[in-house]
Amino acid sequence: MTQADAPRRPARGGGGAARRASRSTVSFETARFIERNIPDFDILTEEALEIIEANAETVLAEIGVNFVNNAPALELWRQAGAEIEGERVRIPRGLARQLCATAPRQFTQHARNPARNVEIGGRNLVLAPVYGPPFVHDVNGGRRYATMEDFRKFVKLGYMSKWLHHSGGTVCEPTDVAVNKRHLDMLHAHMTLSDKPFMGSVTEKSRAQDSVDMCEILFGREFVQNNTVMTSLININSPLTFDDVMMGALEVYAANNQACIISPFIVGGAMAPVSVAGTLTQVLAEVMAGIAYSQLIRPGAPVIFGAFVTSIDMNSGAPTFGTPEAAQITYGAGQLARRLGLPYRSAGSFNGSKLPDAQAAYETANTLNVGLLSGVNFMLHACGWLEGGLVASFEKFVMDADQLGALHKLAQGVSVDPDAQAMDALREVGPGGHFLGCAHTQAHFKSAFWKSDLLDYKPYETWSEEGARDTVMLAAARVEKMLGDYQQPGMDPAIAEALAAFVAARKASEPDAFS
Amino acid sequence: MTQADAPRRPARGGGGAARRASRSTVSFETARFIERNIPDFDILTEEALEIIEANAETVLAEIGVNFVNNAPALELWRQAGAEIEGERVRIPRGLARQLCATAPRQFTQHARNPARNVEIGGRNLVLAPVYGPPFVHDVNGGRRYATMEDFRKFVKLGYMSKWLHHSGGTVCEPTDVAVNKRHLDMLHAHMTLSDKPFMGSVTEKSRAQDSVDMCEILFGREFVQNNTVMTSLININSPLTFDDVMMGALEVYAANNQACIISPFIVGGAMAPVSVAGTLTQVLAEVMAGIAYSQLIRPGAPVIFGAFVTSIDMNSGAPTFGTPEAAQITYGAGQLARRLGLPYRSAGSFNGSKLPDAQAAYETANTLNVGLLSGVNFMLHACGWLEGGLVASFEKFVMDADQLGALHKLAQGVSVDPDAQAMDALREVGPGGHFLGCAHTQAHFKSAFWKSDLLDYKPYETWSEEGARDTVMLAAARVEKMLGDYQQPGMDPAIAEALAAFVAARKASEPDAFS
Repeated sequence: MTQADAPRRPARGGGGAARRASRSTVSFETARFIERNIPDFDILTEEALEIIEANAETVLAEIGVNFVNNAPALELWRQAGAEIEGERVRIPRGLARQLCATAPRQFTQHARNPARNVEIGGRNLVLAPVYGPPFVHDVNGGRRYATMEDFRKFVKLGYMSKWLHHSGGTVCEPTDVAVNKRHLDMLHAHMTLSDKPFMGSVTEKSRAQDSVDMCEILFGREFVQNNTVMTSLININSPLTFDDVMMGALEVYAANNQACIISPFIVGGAMAPVSVAGTLTQVLAEVMAGIAYSQLIRPGAPVIFGAFVTSIDMNSGAPTFGTPEAAQITYGAGQLARRLGLPYRSAGSFNGSKLPDAQAAYETANTLNVGLLSGVNFMLHACGWLEGGLVASFEKFVMDADQLGALHKLAQGVSVDPDAQAMDALREVGPGGHFLGCAHTQAHFKSAFWKSDLLDYKPYETWSEEGARDTVMLAAARVEKMLGDYQQPGMDPAIAEALAAFVAARKASEPDAFS
Repeated sequence: MTQADAPRRPARGGGGAARRASRSTVSFETARFIERNIPDFDILTEEALEIIEANAETVLAEIGVNFVNNAPALELWRQAGAEIEGERVRIPRGLARQLCATAPRQFTQHARNPARNVEIGGRNLVLAPVYGPPFVHDVNGGRRYATMEDFRKFVKLGYMSKWLHHSGGTVCEPTDVAVNKRHLDMLHAHMTLSDKPFMGSVTEKSRAQDSVDMCEILFGREFVQNNTVMTSLININSPLTFDDVMMGALEVYAANNQACIISPFIVGGAMAPVSVAGTLTQVLAEVMAGIAYSQLIRPGAPVIFGAFVTSIDMNSGAPTFGTPEAAQITYGAGQLARRLGLPYRSAGSFNGSKLPDAQAAYETANTLNVGLLSGVNFMLHACGWLEGGLVASFEKFVMDADQLGALHKLAQGVSVDPDAQAMDALREVGPGGHFLGCAHTQAHFKSAFWKSDLLDYKPYETWSEEGARDTVMLAAARVEKMLGDYQQPGMDPAIAEALAAFVAARKASEPDAFS
């Protein structure tokens, strides 16, 4: 029994019956998305913001952006008033910002369990797991290519993680399934193994359409046409390039009123200038162009201002995470997003470590804290990221997911209602006393302090007797316990059958492709 | 050879000569204290601040504070206008705040090397190492009682840590030296093994006087009388109690114009109410009473508004660190200190872990970031803290000290000067290009990004071939390298002799005491 699980267990005695009772009372509680009651940290002055905004307009008007292999996009831009030269789109000052104005400030992403719906935008913060790693890592098996079985385990862990509001997308890349079919298995896993909201496929226009089709089975066609049920990740090919694959997916989602994160993918110094202000200028220009394009497809389509930015180790060329420059960019991009009136995506459990060790935790904590204070509304990669995003770590998934609880509490802010002022307690205890037994403490001690479900708070001797486990060992036990306790959420059998049939038919319709 | 040390080594070849050359070129550079160019994070509204300030006045006026076994203090308070009843001091509304007004907003703490002087207050942040642990821990020896030899090693590591501005005080408790004599050895180590500023002894009035006497040898009597050369830690015995030992030390230091941190020591729920607002009220009342008392001793004596606050695990009673409640209190106390116009001490490398693992790093990073953004001016415990402060860890000392570099860079803020705007780079590279070779990158790549001297940024294969070391192993190698490279800073032989003679004479003047 791990420390983390102790509070959930029934009183001693009972053997098998008690275990069954324990199992039946396991709670898969999910916290409501974070509604911030604390201010944002505004690192940029008004003057700096105005300079960056003016420069971004200059970038769009004078340098422009490329829409690659996408004649219809160029035609839409031409009609909107942009100047087209080959694949280059030069956007007159003010036009992109004006087009962005039709995007909603906030939207609801629906889950199949309505209690798990999330509100994206405003003062809210929605947390979703790591996205994209081709490898997985656990303490027993080490690092290896990810499989569909790994994927399912991560979806189960996400479903059971209290502080995670969203099931995510490509939690890891199931490399044992054909490239042209794995999106079907991934979506099927999110839809059936969890009831939290999820993301759609973006690797091909047809796969985005498959995602919409499967959602129509899950939610009903009319519901999908009137509501947002997916938030998908559209990366910009920085600098200033919009490729046809990502734009193809965006076009499908926007046309179907499904949400997209429009997100520069920047390793600073390689895909953007080495300076923070220069990178922010490029980020703003790229996001405005991408979101403007989404609104050309369908005015009012829900979108998120994304910023994935890391710095680089100029010695080795490796991307670096949890760095001060990334923090500055994340804070600054949040300000730019708010001035555009758009939901903001950034931050995550970023780190460059090969192991879920102290480096991983320092870099992750640096970034999670920046994410909360920079006003992020949708945090992808909020748990499980390792080794620069090459690896999804089972242990780090639950370690990070536990830390996300602290963000919830911090975001509540500080109450000064009469009870929180605690003047009665101060009077009751007085100089030299102690507060453990006073009435105010007795009334509040259960909820007063956020408590980790994972970390070690035991006396040294107890900890030592129990095996002197480090955080990774505690996390490994928690992963095992959570997967053992997992119970699949119920689903209408007709829908389950229809989803399975759709996946089978689509898989049978074309041969496997492995690149 | 560790990755961290690689950039310092000369080119291949040369054997012994190269090693000697390397040794002679080792640089013990110390960064200047942080001068923030970023705003503070203000978590409390104006309304909340006013409520807390009014309640703190109520606490002082109606509940009062105890000055224990200290008749002269009671007499000073009586003369100042307080109401005395036994050891209880009730301070009329407004009086404590009024007395605090004579304390300086900022002061210089001098080091024997003037290049290492620090400015405490204003927008500055001075970083000092862990203070007080009776145990040490390293990866080879595990956890054991600290000795004077350990103490000296930590002073050497502090001297060689670029991002550490201050040598600290009781970096660990040298338990192999008599209780009544160890302060002499500790001060002697700070004075001779380092040239950074340091702290004085507070465990007895006579030991505070020894600290002043030794400083008069080191700096000259007149210099000490006219300048601040020590910043010492005066803990308040929370709730609302000022004991005679700590006050005795405070009286010596204040009378000699030496600085004191006046600091509540609060495990929330035990020594203060379980609510953030209630704790902040108590912190403010306690600090105002303590600082007011320092100004009764000597108006204008330099002081720091301290707040050491942790939360508690209500199951086990263990103090917990890096928690959201501690963050809220640290942010709030910073605002209260600024409104009083006083330098602020809080935060540090706090964590409850038994090992320098992921838990230690999450909790530490949470707290270091809060420290930077809450406007802390003096951060004690900025590196090396483990296991709730029971343990000073060699590896964690260098791990944390490395992370302090990131705070320096983040605090610089975001430049928007024409060069930082990087418009030329954006024009030069354009859509689809890359920035690695552009002129702007070439001009700035060496200084653009903060770079860890410790953490692993290598490709997986290289890292794996080199032993797949985690952060602790990298840190252990760095500790060994730094201690091997250590060179003692020079000192006038007459002063060195006088210091040694003072220590010997004081030690000979009384028998050893071990409690």
